[in-house]
Amino acid sequence: MTLLEQIRAIVGDVGLVTGADVARRPADWTGSTPCRARAVVRPRTTAELAAVMKLCHAAGQPVVPAGGLTGLVRGASATDEELLVSFERMRTIEAIDPVGRTMVVQAGVPLEAVHDAAAEHGLIYGVDLGARGSCTIGGNIATNAGGNTVIRYGMTRDNVLGLEAVLADGTILSSMNALLKNNAGYDLKHLFIGSEGTLGLVTRAVLRLHPAPSSEATAILAIDGFDALTGFFALAGRRLDGGLKSFEVMWSSYYDLIAIQSGRHRPPLPTGHDFYVIVESAGTDPERDEALFAGMLGEALEQGLARDAVIAASKAQRNAIWAIREDVEGQIKMLMPGISLDVSLPITKMQEYVDGLCRSLPDLCGKDAMMVVYGHIGDNNLHLLVAPRPWNAKAKHNAEILVYGPLAVLGGSVSAEHCIGLDKREWLPLSRSLEELAMMRRLKTALDPKGLLNRGKVL
Amino acid sequence: MTLLEQIRAIVGDVGLVTGADVARRPADWTGSTPCRARAVVRPRTTAELAAVMKLCHAAGQPVVPAGGLTGLVRGASATDEELLVSFERMRTIEAIDPVGRTMVVQAGVPLEAVHDAAAEHGLIYGVDLGARGSCTIGGNIATNAGGNTVIRYGMTRDNVLGLEAVLADGTILSSMNALLKNNAGYDLKHLFIGSEGTLGLVTRAVLRLHPAPSSEATAILAIDGFDALTGFFALAGRRLDGGLKSFEVMWSSYYDLIAIQSGRHRPPLPTGHDFYVIVESAGTDPERDEALFAGMLGEALEQGLARDAVIAASKAQRNAIWAIREDVEGQIKMLMPGISLDVSLPITKMQEYVDGLCRSLPDLCGKDAMMVVYGHIGDNNLHLLVAPRPWNAKAKHNAEILVYGPLAVLGGSVSAEHCIGLDKREWLPLSRSLEELAMMRRLKTALDPKGLLNRGKVL
Repeated sequence: MTLLEQIRAIVGDVGLVTGADVARRPADWTGSTPCRARAVVRPRTTAELAAVMKLCHAAGQPVVPAGGLTGLVRGASATDEELLVSFERMRTIEAIDPVGRTMVVQAGVPLEAVHDAAAEHGLIYGVDLGARGSCTIGGNIATNAGGNTVIRYGMTRDNVLGLEAVLADGTILSSMNALLKNNAGYDLKHLFIGSEGTLGLVTRAVLRLHPAPSSEATAILAIDGFDALTGFFALAGRRLDGGLKSFEVMWSSYYDLIAIQSGRHRPPLPTGHDFYVIVESAGTDPERDEALFAGMLGEALEQGLARDAVIAASKAQRNAIWAIREDVEGQIKMLMPGISLDVSLPITKMQEYVDGLCRSLPDLCGKDAMMVVYGHIGDNNLHLLVAPRPWNAKAKHNAEILVYGPLAVLGGSVSAEHCIGLDKREWLPLSRSLEELAMMRRLKTALDPKGLLNRGKVL
Repeated sequence: MTLLEQIRAIVGDVGLVTGADVARRPADWTGSTPCRARAVVRPRTTAELAAVMKLCHAAGQPVVPAGGLTGLVRGASATDEELLVSFERMRTIEAIDPVGRTMVVQAGVPLEAVHDAAAEHGLIYGVDLGARGSCTIGGNIATNAGGNTVIRYGMTRDNVLGLEAVLADGTILSSMNALLKNNAGYDLKHLFIGSEGTLGLVTRAVLRLHPAPSSEATAILAIDGFDALTGFFALAGRRLDGGLKSFEVMWSSYYDLIAIQSGRHRPPLPTGHDFYVIVESAGTDPERDEALFAGMLGEALEQGLARDAVIAASKAQRNAIWAIREDVEGQIKMLMPGISLDVSLPITKMQEYVDGLCRSLPDLCGKDAMMVVYGHIGDNNLHLLVAPRPWNAKAKHNAEILVYGPLAVLGGSVSAEHCIGLDKREWLPLSRSLEELAMMRRLKTALDPKGLLNRGKVL
């Protein structure tokens, strides 16, 4: 039997996609590129995947794990020689413990399904991001997904208590801890969180849940000057502390283009300010929280930290504010062709960094180039959309030089939440020392000596 | 030159303790056991320690790292052949960033010094425990220290952004990330957090800080029945959410012995209840928080979840309540000789677990044996003091069988926050699978192939 026949014997006909059917699947979220792979394996259980990996290990067959295909760095991109492992048939929510506040899920469960299941018990899962309908828990874990509520609940790493992974040789490493405190030996799950499927294939996880807030307050503010911005961030932290859930900043370049010029939104605030900030708090007492939130905004206006502010008076208004921030279609319409990059750096260096980018943009990307900046500044995270004009491969490379180049000196990172995949691999040395890169290779060799798992990604 | 002479040339006379001076130092926090070691090295910088480790690696010299010696599992215990590395001269707080809310420290800085330095900027560090005056940040990191505020701020792992470690061969691995979001390659710090000095020696760290709460409310409640206890825990979570800072439970066995019979305290509540719970919230608005807290307690009393409650009306009353929970001297006076054990298990299994221990105690530890139970139940963490009568090595071993034996079936762990060290090594297989133990050994071999770092600890 050939390798594919042996695999078919394990996962069944429905579990294996071959031939022309492979290219009928999309390679990524844009849907514009056909999938490439020797075949697509769709296991239903950890045991099936382990059996498949045993065969692949013996045959030296490289594999690429794929979740919801919402990544932005080609982390799930395969070649015609590689086997794509899709978790689309592993979508079972296995258990919820409302007292211990945990949920056990298979890797292919979409993020939004986790939110829905938690809500039925008055609980929430702390990770949320725009791609919630498509992205999977397994992909979130592999990429240590961040999102819009990191300031309150942390990244995926902070919301996963335990996990199960299939190693390169087919060994099942089950580390399904459900306890908040567990210092019994090395905490192995961290090897697999954020390592982009290069050290093991995550098949199941125990997620940590939190009590669902019963109140939510959202506002958008106009702020002039970077000192006022950091001053407002400090004020919001002091006043709201644990209740501060999001702190999203749109530079005027972003707000003017997306909220105003695109014609896709009813702008809640006029143009002409340096920054537009979405601040959101979550609490457990609607009346008190509303007063606290309004008081905090009043203080910001009084102290001159904010020039203007609009509090969302309804769920619809809240959604309208967030729609500006999450308007991927608007970004595509107004800026594409271009590239979307994410970086992180100390808050205190952000203005210097962005000023430098604006100065260098015409030289590196053309005098008609466009760039918009926004991000989760409370998490140190900036997103940048750069649209060089004219658009070509050299221009794209220059945009990467523009954005990544200054980071090393400023103590920044070439990836805040998008990870490395293929697209940022050549830039990784800007953020990590030779010793760190050597340690990563040492781990890769120790866990996957044949180099079969997500070959060429990250390292 | 001998190895010790070469080391002396690096660290100077003051950096090396040899001969009879070694035994003049204490081996642990009790002060009753003299230190054993071939010598004690006291480097002042990462570079000094790296140079020392290069020599040790070449010579095959095993080393044991030591922090504040407050551990309870002999994790810093050395033999006459081993070199003890003490971080007592690496006590510099290098930097504080009040905007980014980070602090850079050397490994030997005591936990309390971190608290004090953060307070000067209106910030706090999220880890706090009884040994705060003696324990060091390096020891906290090596053991992933927990403590009294895990439910609010997480364990040490959640409060460390980056770190620097010296590897077995003397390589300096500097991973001093200061960013909340950083997905640029593997997150290497997690290898060193909680691995008890067996994979590398932590020399510096970047700590995450939080805004200091401006209000605090503390109460002690009397609760009858385990369902009422979990009901109250759920209520406190819903009402206080992010504000809930501590949820400490004392079983009646503990409260009666320490708060009442010891004669060391003025008991805030009478005997006769099943559980005594210390609940504490922290917030940013004293007046509002007080009302919220009192309302939550009123609801608990109304619903019959609590039988009685006392709110601390002053800092002195607050301290008096916590003194019962943290009364190590009282525990020693009333229960020693005996052993202190910590375990974790799902909240829903705790009553079944403790009932089982009470039934088995006379058989395994003698009919006059005593046992008290308390813990951070919101973190899944129970502490148990078992005093077998008569006290001898067999009785001690039986106490360990009593406490650790049932955990595997209940999904528990033999260490919540004390770690493994030497004392729990033989029990580790109760909590971890063969595959997990094999993976730990694989990591140990990859990072410390000669087995020089904290030999025989954990594995």
